[in-house]
Amino acid sequence: MPVTLDTVRELDRRDPLAHFKARFALPEGVLYLDGNSLGAQPLAAREALATTRDQWRDELIKGWNQGWFDAPERLGNLLAPLIGAGPGEVIVTDNITLNLFKLLGYITESRGRVRPVILSEGGNFPTDGYIAQGLCRFARLEHRVLPEGAELADHLDDRVAAVVLSQVNYRTGRLRDMAATTELVHEHGAEIVWDLAHTAGALPVDLHGSGARYAVGCTYKYLNGGPGAPAFLYVHRDHQGGGWQPLSGWHGHAAPFAFDADYAPAPGITRFRTGTHSALSYAPLEASLRLWQEVDMAALRDKSLALSELFRDGLADLLEAEGIADITPPAAERGSQVALIEREHGYAIVQALIARGVIGDYREPGLMRFGFTPLYLSHEDVWQAARHFREVVENREYLEARFKVRSEVT
Amino acid sequence: MPVTLDTVRELDRRDPLAHFKARFALPEGVLYLDGNSLGAQPLAAREALATTRDQWRDELIKGWNQGWFDAPERLGNLLAPLIGAGPGEVIVTDNITLNLFKLLGYITESRGRVRPVILSEGGNFPTDGYIAQGLCRFARLEHRVLPEGAELADHLDDRVAAVVLSQVNYRTGRLRDMAATTELVHEHGAEIVWDLAHTAGALPVDLHGSGARYAVGCTYKYLNGGPGAPAFLYVHRDHQGGGWQPLSGWHGHAAPFAFDADYAPAPGITRFRTGTHSALSYAPLEASLRLWQEVDMAALRDKSLALSELFRDGLADLLEAEGIADITPPAAERGSQVALIEREHGYAIVQALIARGVIGDYREPGLMRFGFTPLYLSHEDVWQAARHFREVVENREYLEARFKVRSEVT
Repeated sequence: MPVTLDTVRELDRRDPLAHFKARFALPEGVLYLDGNSLGAQPLAAREALATTRDQWRDELIKGWNQGWFDAPERLGNLLAPLIGAGPGEVIVTDNITLNLFKLLGYITESRGRVRPVILSEGGNFPTDGYIAQGLCRFARLEHRVLPEGAELADHLDDRVAAVVLSQVNYRTGRLRDMAATTELVHEHGAEIVWDLAHTAGALPVDLHGSGARYAVGCTYKYLNGGPGAPAFLYVHRDHQGGGWQPLSGWHGHAAPFAFDADYAPAPGITRFRTGTHSALSYAPLEASLRLWQEVDMAALRDKSLALSELFRDGLADLLEAEGIADITPPAAERGSQVALIEREHGYAIVQALIARGVIGDYREPGLMRFGFTPLYLSHEDVWQAARHFREVVENREYLEARFKVRSEVT
Repeated sequence: MPVTLDTVRELDRRDPLAHFKARFALPEGVLYLDGNSLGAQPLAAREALATTRDQWRDELIKGWNQGWFDAPERLGNLLAPLIGAGPGEVIVTDNITLNLFKLLGYITESRGRVRPVILSEGGNFPTDGYIAQGLCRFARLEHRVLPEGAELADHLDDRVAAVVLSQVNYRTGRLRDMAATTELVHEHGAEIVWDLAHTAGALPVDLHGSGARYAVGCTYKYLNGGPGAPAFLYVHRDHQGGGWQPLSGWHGHAAPFAFDADYAPAPGITRFRTGTHSALSYAPLEASLRLWQEVDMAALRDKSLALSELFRDGLADLLEAEGIADITPPAAERGSQVALIEREHGYAIVQALIARGVIGDYREPGLMRFGFTPLYLSHEDVWQAARHFREVVENREYLEARFKVRSEVT
């Protein structure tokens, strides 16, 4: 290991974000490099959940007037500054799949379907393509796929209404240039919906500064909102007057308690709500988003890159000797993860690491994914994780029979 | 009051469901007649929520393999016997609005849109009409409304593909004959989607015995799953092979962890899942559904009707004297609520009752709604609630200024 333990401990002493680690409930003996799948639990989230649980018991139906009903907008406003959005531009609701359906439906409807094509990207997280397929099939639109690695410009003709792209690829961690890509799509007369699942809370995002009009994203990964916490949806304020979104339910109505016979979309971002949401699912996320208000996003980015580099540097010679490919993009084009490919033993290596308490994840085919979450990972944690990786590989621990059976992991 | 306190206490002593009340966490000094809006909290729900919270902390991503991922199907199978469905026919997911969109889209698609009309009913809970409007607008179908009180048969022509009806009306509490109505709709070559929001957990339901093929419903009312707990969706096993539902996300895919490029619907009821769900929102509902396994639904129905009759009998003379209309249907056509109309003072009466700890709710215009939940309401509770109602009205307590301003209550 080229960096010594003394060195990483010194890095931790000088780390301006080090104090956040004590704000998380982390299990003993675990080095958690899977915060890009499910974020760890903020201590404040535990309290918030207990508060809402007791509010249900004590206030019963009155709880809806005591913060539950407005949670989608209130949490959206807490999330907005983390992604470069303004008040009233973000709402926390439903899941990414549903939010993509709403935005793609809203965009195609408000443009009168003059352009019939939705373009999703090969190699993106599959649900983005699945819901584009579902929408196109149902609305008699045309679904096209941008092949992985292809030039976007070559696939933007005058039939493309909307493009769905992830800013950070879930497999490779590759980061797109949001401003340049948004400009390119707009120049071709189309709209782009950004999927920020692996961006929000992982690095600074500037939706406004990038000219972005539409985005969705996830709150249970880097934002630490809890397992399956509700997703978010962003629409630039200048593009909120475009009419209906197809999933028009009572919580998105202009006057939900008037019980009018006909639907009328609420003004602003509220029209993207559907029906009644789980109050309990918002409580831990709200506590986590309040913690996030204290985070310096530039310092977060610095530490994120320092951690991923520390991990890669600690393993570079081993990976080369073992023929394990490090496909992690260079720092400027990287999200907050390291991606290694070992087609034969990748799954077993990840399982052997888990047996040692080092949690990463595995995605077919051959991808070992390690996420770096600067709020609760120290430099020493990452150094130790690299040491475990080295020992697992050098000692061939992954060849044990119990690591050879593949199972499903989300 | 025609019935004495001694009498109702004797009824409680003989009540076979009386023991369930101790299984709920009920606030002191509250008589809760709004379990038809939000059910009270089972004690076991508190423990279940704490368990899932700690599972997030301790197991992190592994929690998805320890019961979180399969919760929609597992809870669906727990719910099925309460509504006369079989294993694999019910899934707990998303909300009613979204589940209606899925079913209406699925029905129209699987029929090739030969019939273009979706019929929803006037006077139903508005979101059922709103989502039918959204779907028709988006899919270029035709939305029609069955006027309140009209004969369904008169509105079933050969252009109607699907009808959405509530089994119990949320305002009046009127109960439809599910078997006869289902048969009528099928005879006209259409499908019917039943909304069981005010039925499930309120009275016995026999979906199979009634010939019903499609239904949705709510778990946060009579089923006590927690504020905004996920909704359910039922499809008869013989009708699960009809292809895609429009909200096709990765959790509804045949192989969600294969990360295939193209969507392929999962076999069976799983195809009605969309994306990642909140594990925390399922925990209290699962605990509540386990409690429900112990409930004799026939005894529940008997007690439900006894309680609503007790309330009405206790107020009959007063209502007549005061000109307050009791529009509660006769027992055989009643859900589990009492509906009173007082257009001028209804809102203020409900507020004055709330000030006394008697929680009912108010819906414009003029409707005072009182729900009867046999698991945690005693005969004495209902007798005392009627006494409070009498005193509020006889003493004109509702004329106090503080009860005159209307606010939004879900």
